[in-house]
Amino acid sequence: MSTDQRFDDWAHRLGYAFDGEIKIGGNYTPVVVDGHLAYVSGQVPRVGDTVVVTGRVGAEVSLEQAQRAAQVCAMRALALLRQQFGSLDRVGRILRITVFVQCTDAFTQHSEVADGASAVLSDVLGEAGRHTRTSVGVFQLPKNASVELDLIASMQA
Amino acid sequence: MSTDQRFDDWAHRLGYAFDGEIKIGGNYTPVVVDGHLAYVSGQVPRVGDTVVVTGRVGAEVSLEQAQRAAQVCAMRALALLRQQFGSLDRVGRILRITVFVQCTDAFTQHSEVADGASAVLSDVLGEAGRHTRTSVGVFQLPKNASVELDLIASMQA
Amino acid sequence: MSTDQRFDDWAHRLGYAFDGEIKIGGNYTPVVVDGHLAYVSGQVPRVGDTVVVTGRVGAEVSLEQAQRAAQVCAMRALALLRQQFGSLDRVGRILRITVFVQCTDAFTQHSEVADGASAVLSDVLGEAGRHTRTSVGVFQLPKNASVELDLIASMQA
Repeated sequence: MSTDQRFDDWAHRLGYAFDGEIKIGGNYTPVVVDGHLAYVSGQVPRVGDTVVVTGRVGAEVSLEQAQRAAQVCAMRALALLRQQFGSLDRVGRILRITVFVQCTDAFTQHSEVADGASAVLSDVLGEAGRHTRTSVGVFQLPKNASVELDLIASMQA
Repeated sequence: MSTDQRFDDWAHRLGYAFDGEIKIGGNYTPVVVDGHLAYVSGQVPRVGDTVVVTGRVGAEVSLEQAQRAAQVCAMRALALLRQQFGSLDRVGRILRITVFVQCTDAFTQHSEVADGASAVLSDVLGEAGRHTRTSVGVFQLPKNASVELDLIASMQA
Repeated sequence: MSTDQRFDDWAHRLGYAFDGEIKIGGNYTPVVVDGHLAYVSGQVPRVGDTVVVTGRVGAEVSLEQAQRAAQVCAMRALALLRQQFGSLDRVGRILRITVFVQCTDAFTQHSEVADGASAVLSDVLGEAGRHTRTSVGVFQLPKNASVELDLIASMQA
């Protein structure tokens, strides 16, 4: 399977389509390209007009739901790269992802939440998906999203 | 109007001067340049010795006040680039801004706060100011600041 | 003293060894190199299997303990660069560090906490250790760590 086919496979598995317009909630741009680097804006687990996982992880949101949220965030970021570059084959390496988790004061499994995003990147991109990562627990996120993720990718010609 | 004139216009509109020394609150440096990239340290809305917007957004700080805080943070970041490079004309593109908002547990308009910073960047820099963005809600910030912003810019010769 | 000797000196001063395997708590990689840039994943103050400073800064964790946590995080990041490149002499410049502090709602000395990390970088690397910095107060961190730090470094041949 190609990277794009594996992306479509993950979309099918999650039950969401990521091939339409990716909506952005403010006065900025989803992707900026500088030389061979692509910066992707912070993604919440929005599909169409709906943020599909909202609320505080460790309270009304379970670890499993939060991992799914992280997967949707990662898929959105990949969808934006695919739209920008035509194919995910162009991704040379994911350099860095930062994963912000809206959590309770006692929730400490941010790495496990972020593993949801890392699994998507590894499965879809293979070796090119092996990234550095920072995951932290924040107090709130835009639109009450449970997870937000941004990334920097190194692209190839 | 040139980018520098538009910067001065925004400073006038906000009622603050950004042409003096930009104070830094610790053992680090405000800007590091690596090749054509400029990294700017996290900026709180400090003018001179005073952080002009402090407190928790959604409680004692309104959305409008927080947007103004984000504007001051963005102006500080631009002031640092102008000091470093002589003119904002040198900015080729703002690649990424990250906006941290000290907020209540129920405040979810972080994107709207960050729009304050994005408006400054777009107005002053035009197309070069179109950036990627991540905005999150944090528990506290240095000196009880309501907003903190950092950025990476691509500079040109 | 060489940079590597100064690193060993700091390890001795902290009372920890940083020359073994640096454990990573999830499905990602500690360092990614892209051209001359090295991205280092978020580091908590873990030594071997133990996170040596846990809990909320401003409550059960003092400023001094948090500064020590930041020092350990910075040493871990340097240890990873040393493992990857053979010597810290290869570091041309630390471009950016981001310091996340798990704190109380009233704790505002995040810059002072981050100064712990900045002191390590400056002492070990000299001029190459002068970096940009963002420090914020978050609600929780992986494994209840008190501090987390990530960085980007520019390497030389």
